[in-house]
Amino acid sequence: MTLSPSSLPDYPIVRLKPKTDSRKIRHGSPWVFDNEVVTDRRTKAMTPGTIALLQDAERRDMALVAVNPHSRIFARVLERDLTRPVDGAWIEAKLTRALAMRERLYKDPFYRLVHAEGDGLPGVVIDRFGDVAVVQPNAAWAEVLLDELAEALARVTGVTTILKNAGGRARGLEGLDDVDAVLLGDLPDAPVPVAMNGATYMADLTGGQKTGLFYDQRPNHAFAAGLAQGARVLDVFSHVGGFGLACLGEGAESVLCVDGSEAALALAEEGAARSGFGARLETRKGDAFEVLAALAEEGAKFDMVICDPPAFAPSKPALEAGLRAYERIARLAAALVEEGGYLGLCSCSHAADLSKFRGASLRGIGRAGRSAQLLYTGFAGPDHPMLPQLAESGYLKALMFRL
Amino acid sequence: MTLSPSSLPDYPIVRLKPKTDSRKIRHGSPWVFDNEVVTDRRTKAMTPGTIALLQDAERRDMALVAVNPHSRIFARVLERDLTRPVDGAWIEAKLTRALAMRERLYKDPFYRLVHAEGDGLPGVVIDRFGDVAVVQPNAAWAEVLLDELAEALARVTGVTTILKNAGGRARGLEGLDDVDAVLLGDLPDAPVPVAMNGATYMADLTGGQKTGLFYDQRPNHAFAAGLAQGARVLDVFSHVGGFGLACLGEGAESVLCVDGSEAALALAEEGAARSGFGARLETRKGDAFEVLAALAEEGAKFDMVICDPPAFAPSKPALEAGLRAYERIARLAAALVEEGGYLGLCSCSHAADLSKFRGASLRGIGRAGRSAQLLYTGFAGPDHPMLPQLAESGYLKALMFRL
Repeated sequence: MTLSPSSLPDYPIVRLKPKTDSRKIRHGSPWVFDNEVVTDRRTKAMTPGTIALLQDAERRDMALVAVNPHSRIFARVLERDLTRPVDGAWIEAKLTRALAMRERLYKDPFYRLVHAEGDGLPGVVIDRFGDVAVVQPNAAWAEVLLDELAEALARVTGVTTILKNAGGRARGLEGLDDVDAVLLGDLPDAPVPVAMNGATYMADLTGGQKTGLFYDQRPNHAFAAGLAQGARVLDVFSHVGGFGLACLGEGAESVLCVDGSEAALALAEEGAARSGFGARLETRKGDAFEVLAALAEEGAKFDMVICDPPAFAPSKPALEAGLRAYERIARLAAALVEEGGYLGLCSCSHAADLSKFRGASLRGIGRAGRSAQLLYTGFAGPDHPMLPQLAESGYLKALMFRL
Repeated sequence: MTLSPSSLPDYPIVRLKPKTDSRKIRHGSPWVFDNEVVTDRRTKAMTPGTIALLQDAERRDMALVAVNPHSRIFARVLERDLTRPVDGAWIEAKLTRALAMRERLYKDPFYRLVHAEGDGLPGVVIDRFGDVAVVQPNAAWAEVLLDELAEALARVTGVTTILKNAGGRARGLEGLDDVDAVLLGDLPDAPVPVAMNGATYMADLTGGQKTGLFYDQRPNHAFAAGLAQGARVLDVFSHVGGFGLACLGEGAESVLCVDGSEAALALAEEGAARSGFGARLETRKGDAFEVLAALAEEGAKFDMVICDPPAFAPSKPALEAGLRAYERIARLAAALVEEGGYLGLCSCSHAADLSKFRGASLRGIGRAGRSAQLLYTGFAGPDHPMLPQLAESGYLKALMFRL
């Protein structure tokens, strides 16, 4: 929409270079890179987080954007309707819309409430744990508007505690600090119990990895659990027991959780105890590759083995090494699966797309001398919506094989 | 495994051409095409369905295969362990293995029991409806062993009725007839009720499309239904009400089912009545494109629109026209979705892969002047396992957008 200049607030202007293809942005792409805009002393001096008016090379208005001259992503599209100022009310509208979808999907208020670009709030991640929300403002504009964001969040959801998690890697790229803070209420003094998939998980919102619990795997946990009745399950890279506790909830005979973090395994045990199936859970701390090899030495066999490792291929340069690591995990894990049993393999690597990850998994299964049916391909749950124009937002893949 | 010739039964031999890459088959590919084997008067005269021994060009034994000299797929790999004869006991072992997985996944005996190559029975599809099984022997070898197959099926599952459905298109390519038959018990004289996803579906096992009900969409039906509380839903290409009845089961306010088949809509209505939500279902018979356009004329709006059309791009030559049809459906359907509502688009076209189908859907949504989040990407359910070496078996894609 183009308005006469007089009717618009006085936004600073950022202009695309003549050679930049503006259609990509008109078609919904939310990012403008630093080599796509005209930069001069004025634009380079803009405060990170400044709201600006993006124009194409012919000076036609395109969108309101958040500028960060220190970032490769020079501008993030916030709003294409130029008459709508980006303020607390604007944030509230986005949160209200995001909440409406989650309330349809989930009986209880435990979910990712805002998934950044996918929910129209670029760079902002909000996870909700009942009355507690954890905000990751991973873009400069959100840091600038953090008070407005926290106020809108409390109004829309009624949460009584809001924590700021500044641990996101993207904050460094945006030139932001890594200082956590309490934006509303008090820091919880104990892990928060989260009911999901028939189990109670313990989320440590202050000391844990990321925001203490990964909601993205919820549908994949549920699928695995649906196969777990009476099964002996090995959950490798278990974190706080994501797959393992869900399997116990569906009647798995026993679960062995393996993780490198003592703290994560302690939370898994606490979750199992709270869920009433503590005696069926065992844990083993150690390097996953070493534990898998050791279990093979011991002659251990499982009806189901799940491996949900950290991103082995987080970036393109790491792709080849990452795929070899996925292949190796698949080979070691497949060797522990009973004939007719199940093997779940996950990847949260942006750089390894579904086809590459599936290929690496199959090579590993083949090198273990096994053959496989593929039962299931899953992605992140619907509380992690994807902007289709931004392929990068589809990072999580989960495969379930039968061997 | 290579045995001395004397220890093997006297199988006829089929040999790969010297230039054929045998690794593909050694790595699990189940199909050998007619241009990959040495053909002469002897092989051309083989009875379709003959069990033969496949050898590579160096005369090394590879696998037992089912031969059909009339088919482009000249041989289908049945068994790589040459000591295991392909007979009733062999079929029984495959069925037992397939059943074990379904019994883990489903409380009630309503599922696809055998999904052809994905379950190690090439060309054979078996759908189970409680005590009734419907067999599609879509490869010649299964037609030859049909009595053994039916006997094993009754032994393993306890079904009391077995119907042969000879309507599969692949039977023509195999040179098989299209004559249905009753292999065990009596032809059901009424549609069979099937409980799924909180609704009762009516499956016409004698007069319906394919085997009367599509189990493949079950997880996608469930996902859509999870968003449907209180919603006004439009289910286009509804068949017997796949998405619509599941949505009513989860509390949709109203559902309008659109289909070209009067018989399918009558079954949808019978299912809704049996499920106790008859009054909330309406049906409209007609061409989907015309009905979508007419609804737009009427100014109708829905909170959720689902389109699950027949394959618009069943083969590579039909791809471009098919993608245009998917784009057109997406455009017409998106125009009927309320702001903030949901649009489900499905494709069962082999030729249109996920990326192409998603692209066509997004172009259609864009041409309707809408923008979208992608919440969910689903495939066929786990009772439709895929042989990873056979990309073709992954045909069904379901996308759920929020507009």
